[in-house]
Amino acid sequence: MAAEIVNPRSDSDTAGGAQSASDEPFDPAFALHRGGKMAVQATVPIRDKDDLSLAYTPGVAKVCSAIAERPELVHDYTWKSQVVAVVTDGTAVLGLGDIGPEASLPVMEGKAILFKQFGGVDAVPVALATTDADEIVETVVRLAPSFGGVNLEDISAPRCFEIERKLQERLDIPVFHDDQHGTAVVTLAALRNAAKLTGRGLGDLRAVISGAGAAGVAIAKFLLEAGLGDVAVTDRKGVVSRDRDDLTPVKREIAELTNKAGLSGSLESALAGADVFIGVSGGTVPEPAVASMAPNSFVFAMANPNPEVHPDVAHKYAAVVATGRSDFPNQINNVLAFPGIFAGALQVRASRITEGMKIAAANALADVVGDELAADYVIPSPFDERVAPAVTAAVAAAARAEGVARR
Amino acid sequence: MAAEIVNPRSDSDTAGGAQSASDEPFDPAFALHRGGKMAVQATVPIRDKDDLSLAYTPGVAKVCSAIAERPELVHDYTWKSQVVAVVTDGTAVLGLGDIGPEASLPVMEGKAILFKQFGGVDAVPVALATTDADEIVETVVRLAPSFGGVNLEDISAPRCFEIERKLQERLDIPVFHDDQHGTAVVTLAALRNAAKLTGRGLGDLRAVISGAGAAGVAIAKFLLEAGLGDVAVTDRKGVVSRDRDDLTPVKREIAELTNKAGLSGSLESALAGADVFIGVSGGTVPEPAVASMAPNSFVFAMANPNPEVHPDVAHKYAAVVATGRSDFPNQINNVLAFPGIFAGALQVRASRITEGMKIAAANALADVVGDELAADYVIPSPFDERVAPAVTAAVAAAARAEGVARR
Repeated sequence: MAAEIVNPRSDSDTAGGAQSASDEPFDPAFALHRGGKMAVQATVPIRDKDDLSLAYTPGVAKVCSAIAERPELVHDYTWKSQVVAVVTDGTAVLGLGDIGPEASLPVMEGKAILFKQFGGVDAVPVALATTDADEIVETVVRLAPSFGGVNLEDISAPRCFEIERKLQERLDIPVFHDDQHGTAVVTLAALRNAAKLTGRGLGDLRAVISGAGAAGVAIAKFLLEAGLGDVAVTDRKGVVSRDRDDLTPVKREIAELTNKAGLSGSLESALAGADVFIGVSGGTVPEPAVASMAPNSFVFAMANPNPEVHPDVAHKYAAVVATGRSDFPNQINNVLAFPGIFAGALQVRASRITEGMKIAAANALADVVGDELAADYVIPSPFDERVAPAVTAAVAAAARAEGVARR
Repeated sequence: MAAEIVNPRSDSDTAGGAQSASDEPFDPAFALHRGGKMAVQATVPIRDKDDLSLAYTPGVAKVCSAIAERPELVHDYTWKSQVVAVVTDGTAVLGLGDIGPEASLPVMEGKAILFKQFGGVDAVPVALATTDADEIVETVVRLAPSFGGVNLEDISAPRCFEIERKLQERLDIPVFHDDQHGTAVVTLAALRNAAKLTGRGLGDLRAVISGAGAAGVAIAKFLLEAGLGDVAVTDRKGVVSRDRDDLTPVKREIAELTNKAGLSGSLESALAGADVFIGVSGGTVPEPAVASMAPNSFVFAMANPNPEVHPDVAHKYAAVVATGRSDFPNQINNVLAFPGIFAGALQVRASRITEGMKIAAANALADVVGDELAADYVIPSPFDERVAPAVTAAVAAAARAEGVARR
């Protein structure tokens, strides 16, 4: 076939493509990204007229007619049930902030190929030219017939909460904001193993979360759901507490749900005697505050590339240290969760992703560590081949148990 | 990697998937469609931490930053410039009509893999849950940052005209309604060769088109653009002529543009003495009307699966006979045009697809036949490997000549 000859990715016949990037310094990341990181492939042959008459007209007509008569057959005879839309508006991309939809595409392509590589799930980048929450919701609702699930990505708070909630109300396919729930699932898995290692239950632990954005809010809710003893969330002004009068609606809800201890004041003061620090803020925590935590504390300093507490400092005081970085032990990496969560949900055609499915994912992820549990190994490597199948199976089983599976 | 293990396409671990289709009769088309016809693949390796740190965080951040600073780099470092959205609302699917977005997906997947197979162009099915023209336009405008082009497909007339026009006005990437222009390009190519074979110029020919829908309207305009002597378009009420008072705005425009001969009345009467019949209606033409055409006539009866004139009948009177079917010679098949047209447009990052680019595509397609030109060979086979490269090169060159190329 002609594919090789006319592939528009080839720059060889035009000077313009190479030229337009020629003043970039040589960098392996740019070299790797040239032409993008993904492609579409046919999974059926089109070698001759007979193939064409089955995969396209006239053969395809009877498949279309069958789906028109029995809509559920769309899951059997198209790729809908194995493809996820990776949807962003480009407003909260990595630590770069609001860089717009086009500039976010390399991240969305990266996410898409991680879905494929780690979960066997097809995924398509959908970077939208609107930041209006209602327009994003309407757009995704209109796209939904073509997709089996929606992964929201790098959409800034507080719009991300509203967008996710409205989409979950309107769609009967999984809608999952990974920056919130993926991070929360992996954090819970690491925390569960850290507690096990130090002979405590989740109910024994008081955690302080630095950061009240998408990740911080989701982690707080999810850890309480999972049975953590107490959680306090802090923003730049200190502990998110009921006595503050400057809270957004989302933070008011957090103030109601968290902080049983009734803390107020600074992050540093909240850390005194705390068992767990969870950093998703990008700020820094002074060493004396780390030193003031309870014995056998856990420091999960997940900001990238600069953890809120450097691991060398954290290790002076904490029993377990985790970061978001791949060059230290215990990397809290979302890729441990989202591929298996979607693979499991799609496998059973779940209508949504419940709290129970996320907890099952965290437990399965923690269990992969097994008897090798150690202070520098509370969470598996993203490249541990046991991870995705374990998470997938656990999520699928939980979906069935919770009554949201459709097969 | 875990991909094989957890691929949700596999039905092997659940009875549900197989069961839900088990009462379908065995049919090779259904068997081929099980699980869909396409997948996404990574084009870069993710084998270890180092790969991950280049393709995803932290390495991806500098690529995102570069695009944020210089937006045109999105074409170099993402798949945007090689991926086309195949957009439909499911209202005019094959001959099946308005079957809705889900039931249209097998056709859109088929289209997507034809893009890949024949043009090396990646394509993604986007079947929308709205039939409102303005909503479709808004939705596609919002999706545009992620795509290098938009192929509109199986959207019913007259909305398809308005949707295409508005999208072309608002977007700076190619927007192409294949049911209109793909058919027109291939028809012109066949007609040019038929004229050559019978020693005439396009200006010598008077054509009658049966069908005033998307394809009929586009073919009429395009043939006039290419220099055909005269064209009359007919709908169920006969020739679309200025003296009719029942015309839609689109048909009024056609009445102004066409029918220099001032014909009125039935299709049959218009065919008397005509040189060319082009059927895109699905109706039937009585044999006496075919017999009444001029000597050395051409009958292009493109309705599928039942041509407006059976080829055996047409051959009694016509010098050249073409159909839409693969089991007769001279198949007018859009797959001869759209893959190369988009590949050429994407290759030079054309901002739109001009009339000149479409005429260049038709000429290149006609020229593939070359010296082998014969009554049963006025148009190449879809599987002729020369087609897509020839169309691609011609379209890219025309885009540069017309000033719409951006590299």
